[in-house]
Amino acid sequence: MKYSVAVAGASGYAGGELLRLLADHPEFEIRTVTGHSNAGKPLIASQPHLRSLAHLTLQETTPEVLDGHDVVFFALPHGASGALTAQLTNVRLAVDCGADHRLTSEADWAAFYGGDYNEAWTYGVPELIVAGEPGVGGGQSPARQREALAGATRIAAPGCNASTVALSLAPGIAAGVIEPADIVTVLAVGPSGAGKAAHTHLLGAELMGTANPYAVGGTHRHIPEIQQALRGAGAPETPTLSFTPVLVPMSRGILATSTARIVPGTSAADVRAAWENAYADETFVHVLPEGVFPRTADTVGANTCLMGVAIDEAAGRVVIVAAVDNLAKGTAGAAIQSANIALGIPEATGLSVNGVAP
Amino acid sequence: MKYSVAVAGASGYAGGELLRLLADHPEFEIRTVTGHSNAGKPLIASQPHLRSLAHLTLQETTPEVLDGHDVVFFALPHGASGALTAQLTNVRLAVDCGADHRLTSEADWAAFYGGDYNEAWTYGVPELIVAGEPGVGGGQSPARQREALAGATRIAAPGCNASTVALSLAPGIAAGVIEPADIVTVLAVGPSGAGKAAHTHLLGAELMGTANPYAVGGTHRHIPEIQQALRGAGAPETPTLSFTPVLVPMSRGILATSTARIVPGTSAADVRAAWENAYADETFVHVLPEGVFPRTADTVGANTCLMGVAIDEAAGRVVIVAAVDNLAKGTAGAAIQSANIALGIPEATGLSVNGVAP
Amino acid sequence: MKYSVAVAGASGYAGGELLRLLADHPEFEIRTVTGHSNAGKPLIASQPHLRSLAHLTLQETTPEVLDGHDVVFFALPHGASGALTAQLTNVRLAVDCGADHRLTSEADWAAFYGGDYNEAWTYGVPELIVAGEPGVGGGQSPARQREALAGATRIAAPGCNASTVALSLAPGIAAGVIEPADIVTVLAVGPSGAGKAAHTHLLGAELMGTANPYAVGGTHRHIPEIQQALRGAGAPETPTLSFTPVLVPMSRGILATSTARIVPGTSAADVRAAWENAYADETFVHVLPEGVFPRTADTVGANTCLMGVAIDEAAGRVVIVAAVDNLAKGTAGAAIQSANIALGIPEATGLSVNGVAP
Amino acid sequence: MKYSVAVAGASGYAGGELLRLLADHPEFEIRTVTGHSNAGKPLIASQPHLRSLAHLTLQETTPEVLDGHDVVFFALPHGASGALTAQLTNVRLAVDCGADHRLTSEADWAAFYGGDYNEAWTYGVPELIVAGEPGVGGGQSPARQREALAGATRIAAPGCNASTVALSLAPGIAAGVIEPADIVTVLAVGPSGAGKAAHTHLLGAELMGTANPYAVGGTHRHIPEIQQALRGAGAPETPTLSFTPVLVPMSRGILATSTARIVPGTSAADVRAAWENAYADETFVHVLPEGVFPRTADTVGANTCLMGVAIDEAAGRVVIVAAVDNLAKGTAGAAIQSANIALGIPEATGLSVNGVAP
Repeated sequence: MKYSVAVAGASGYAGGELLRLLADHPEFEIRTVTGHSNAGKPLIASQPHLRSLAHLTLQETTPEVLDGHDVVFFALPHGASGALTAQLTNVRLAVDCGADHRLTSEADWAAFYGGDYNEAWTYGVPELIVAGEPGVGGGQSPARQREALAGATRIAAPGCNASTVALSLAPGIAAGVIEPADIVTVLAVGPSGAGKAAHTHLLGAELMGTANPYAVGGTHRHIPEIQQALRGAGAPETPTLSFTPVLVPMSRGILATSTARIVPGTSAADVRAAWENAYADETFVHVLPEGVFPRTADTVGANTCLMGVAIDEAAGRVVIVAAVDNLAKGTAGAAIQSANIALGIPEATGLSVNGVAP
Repeated sequence: MKYSVAVAGASGYAGGELLRLLADHPEFEIRTVTGHSNAGKPLIASQPHLRSLAHLTLQETTPEVLDGHDVVFFALPHGASGALTAQLTNVRLAVDCGADHRLTSEADWAAFYGGDYNEAWTYGVPELIVAGEPGVGGGQSPARQREALAGATRIAAPGCNASTVALSLAPGIAAGVIEPADIVTVLAVGPSGAGKAAHTHLLGAELMGTANPYAVGGTHRHIPEIQQALRGAGAPETPTLSFTPVLVPMSRGILATSTARIVPGTSAADVRAAWENAYADETFVHVLPEGVFPRTADTVGANTCLMGVAIDEAAGRVVIVAAVDNLAKGTAGAAIQSANIALGIPEATGLSVNGVAP
Repeated sequence: MKYSVAVAGASGYAGGELLRLLADHPEFEIRTVTGHSNAGKPLIASQPHLRSLAHLTLQETTPEVLDGHDVVFFALPHGASGALTAQLTNVRLAVDCGADHRLTSEADWAAFYGGDYNEAWTYGVPELIVAGEPGVGGGQSPARQREALAGATRIAAPGCNASTVALSLAPGIAAGVIEPADIVTVLAVGPSGAGKAAHTHLLGAELMGTANPYAVGGTHRHIPEIQQALRGAGAPETPTLSFTPVLVPMSRGILATSTARIVPGTSAADVRAAWENAYADETFVHVLPEGVFPRTADTVGANTCLMGVAIDEAAGRVVIVAAVDNLAKGTAGAAIQSANIALGIPEATGLSVNGVAP
Repeated sequence: MKYSVAVAGASGYAGGELLRLLADHPEFEIRTVTGHSNAGKPLIASQPHLRSLAHLTLQETTPEVLDGHDVVFFALPHGASGALTAQLTNVRLAVDCGADHRLTSEADWAAFYGGDYNEAWTYGVPELIVAGEPGVGGGQSPARQREALAGATRIAAPGCNASTVALSLAPGIAAGVIEPADIVTVLAVGPSGAGKAAHTHLLGAELMGTANPYAVGGTHRHIPEIQQALRGAGAPETPTLSFTPVLVPMSRGILATSTARIVPGTSAADVRAAWENAYADETFVHVLPEGVFPRTADTVGANTCLMGVAIDEAAGRVVIVAAVDNLAKGTAGAAIQSANIALGIPEATGLSVNGVAP
């Protein structure tokens, strides 16, 4: 029997992508979708591309409506899911695609988000290397976050930029081949990550034909999430990270260019091996051959994180260029992959490694 | 009387932008335009946006056709202008928009370009700070490259990425507030910088809706040009630079995000002042107010380089985000601004500070 | 001495384009700019591309602020300028870029706009053919709207789609070579024509990578304006027009494809001659050679309307493909060109025939 | 047991989309992929988004390589498949995505394509209404092209524009509510339909930020294909069609706006009913509710043709706006849907009604 599923925040971009993936998932049955200003209207008016779900109507986003489903996915603005999830009494698995349950540090939450702090849930990046837990992953492979996700009942899906950068850097941190200090990341991102609320700076005429930076100078909310993930991957200290996102004219996609100083004395082969070994067995995270780098187009609609690794000996830095679809692997795909693991469903169920290109 | 002008390579993107600017320039008269495969055809077939030049026909690109003009602008592929310019006997001012005459180091040329080396010409970035030349600019302002351009007869217009990054970093180098080691630059760039020759990877279907990195890992040809400029600005050693360009879906524009380590002990105010002082008197290079960062749209068609400066104390780095139109200030605008200086025409003649947005 | 100018609605897209053009106009001095929610803020915060106007501050949009200027340009939402302009007592020339003063028929206004009707002002499309007025244009050339604009004190700048289509069809109507019945026009348009107010359906993520139709089936407000212009050009009856605009992913531009039935028995040469003769002497409206059709890119920032004309004998229709920049020739350029005429300034002053491409 | 499949022309856009869909199709096994200039190279180098097919290598496109597969899909340039397919002796089903086998009229082929004529194969648009064949579809529903596809061994997949327009107009033709004369269609199309060969006019810098018409005036090759389909749908004479495609900045998608004169005396309800009845039972062709029109984004990656229908009484025309993904429903999806029918596989197998948006 299929798991009954509700999606809260179904009229937005993350909600739409959850539904797109869930619609073809053999183990889930979408029973309830909720909205806010669109409650009472047919889902198809908000998500006209989801023709197979034209029969659904958006309901109010209340605990009563959501409670009682086997699985509830939350795709709400930051700050909205915390109070709501606390009132659920009969939900086997809750997956929050917002930020409310991501940070383990209340101080980080206060500094970068503000408002009520909610406890951290299990972080939904299965492939993330997790270090320093005795007895876990004692074999040749490092431990992974998927081990924590098995059987989880509350999952915090990652920030799309954060997971992309954490996956990009964790192999080098865990292998001890890069320094955790002085990392620099610059990202080209599409505006769907900013959501569907109408703001002038997100208008098409403001974004087409132009590259627009934002949150420059260390203010982006994904910075503490990245630092937390890299500490988890074994960074001996909190990494320092210069992080600059740039909006570019594509509706979906993140291309994250991360560079870190190579630990002096490390050979190029050892650097490269850290990444290749880390993801050699992964279905969705691929290290491309030497000299090959990914395009975001290659990940559209897919649950993949594709990365190319270059060693720049003159600069003394490794450069990792990683591509993801911010709505798929960056948000909804990660949520479903994590839910699969939590429920004991084969991890790749309902997810694709193939993108829609060109 | 106006200066007679020829533009070689008039059917390409850089050539088209030269002509667009020259068409409204009160001191220049476009007398000759040349092409290669398009020779013999009307210019308007290659440049259908230049309606005021519909009377011109593309001629062959030969020394005979070009010689005798007061000014010749070259917008040819790299390697093509060197041999040609050597044969000109009667040209008061030659401005090369290609790379052939940019590098002072034959070793750099061999490493990054290859083929015959040509001597360096006067570098066409007027606002670039030039240090260490006794007697030059002895006053309160630092010396500038415009002083070398006055009266020049052979000018090398800069690489678009190179000048953007050099202008971004020179103030901090010259003021001694940033370290020349371990600079990291990532650029979002439009494909017009790659020229008009047909290549599959530059097709619209390959570039729309996607961010595509290239020349990752220290191989881009503008790296030595940036290093040369920063040495000229006073770097005590050759800067190390991690440099990653990313093609994004806009036809024009460069958004360069450059970060450098702040020299320990330097106050945020001193860092910021380095940039503000450097360009306070400049017409075309603007440092935006604190917390404001430029969009490439703001520079389209303009001769401006707009930059925002952020101090990220947690990361110990300054972040400079600079926007230019790669064809205007990045190439053709720089060429004309430099030509103005060389000929004693007021520097801003024929150039605008206003972009075409949205 | 320059004419003093105020621009009302200076923070929007049409206002920004007016200012971009006025900033370089030798006969106008921008003295006052007004906004609504942005009043009190620097103009540069709303129009960061207009670097030469960084000294201006947005004032409130009131009659007191606007009165007393030689020229006032209105770039306000439809319905906002009517009441305001009625209160101006000391303005030599008012140019309204909104719709309030375009329609001569109160019934059309009620059917397509609603709200208070305002009397029609002189229509600001100088090149538009005007027929049937005894004694006007009695020579070989047909009369033009520019004759009505000479000395005008109140001008209604056209709707961008309307003027493009009217200019496309008027030559054939006036020459009697096409039927005024059963015209079909489909337009690819950029979203800047919809203004800068934040609406979900205009978000970048909604518009990039997709073509979105709107106002399908005869509901677009520019339809009566086109019919009015074509009646003016000599249509013996009100033309019937199927009109469908499609939003496409470009910030600026209109590509209007208009087709009309050729009057039976008319030769292809006569059809083509109607267009070529109509605009042979025009500075800003160009009929391209046979087999050549315009791109919107060729008109970006320019005051041009470029059109290609094809005779499809099998279909019995003429096809006119016309490109304009909706903000330039479509709105602000038309306003300034008309103001030039009204004030006796040479018509092309401050306007360019060259676009910014690619 | 799965059907063994070969895809000829696997390095191009249509080939890539075929492979993307085939990779998840439960009844097909991709055994062979062939290329031309890329033969000998890994498929993944040409199709980096198809991560699940990274093990495949492109072979030469020869009869020897292709023969012996159960199914061969051809995605070759026009003119290339005709000679090749003639040499296949042991292929149960061949599906040609090129034009070689689409036209039943040798005269049409000569006029619009030229070169050797090849006999027409069964046309691969299952939902197309087919009229006038006695005994076929004698019940309440009209006959469809899917009946001809059942058991077919040679299938001509449609032209993407042609099938979109044919599906748009066939209901009105078949129901006798629109006139077959004087149809007008204008299309906004993405450049992937033009293929992956490098041409200057298809460069990203030529296409971004601009709308570019082509094949204006009745010269597009899909015109006779549309006429043939509409004759098949019951047009009493060959329809006359003004057809203008416009390239717009989206990699995929067709938005076809088609208008036709309503037969005088027909009620709006009858017109609307013609479309609603025609596709009420179809899985992939959807008529949207009154007042709703499709965006191409809603069809990306999907096998859907979505259409909105408006009756413009003032103009006397019906307007049908139809959206498809040119590579999916327009080409590869149609090919696979048709192959499913031919082989007795459930028609919707391996195809989705949900698009990837935003």
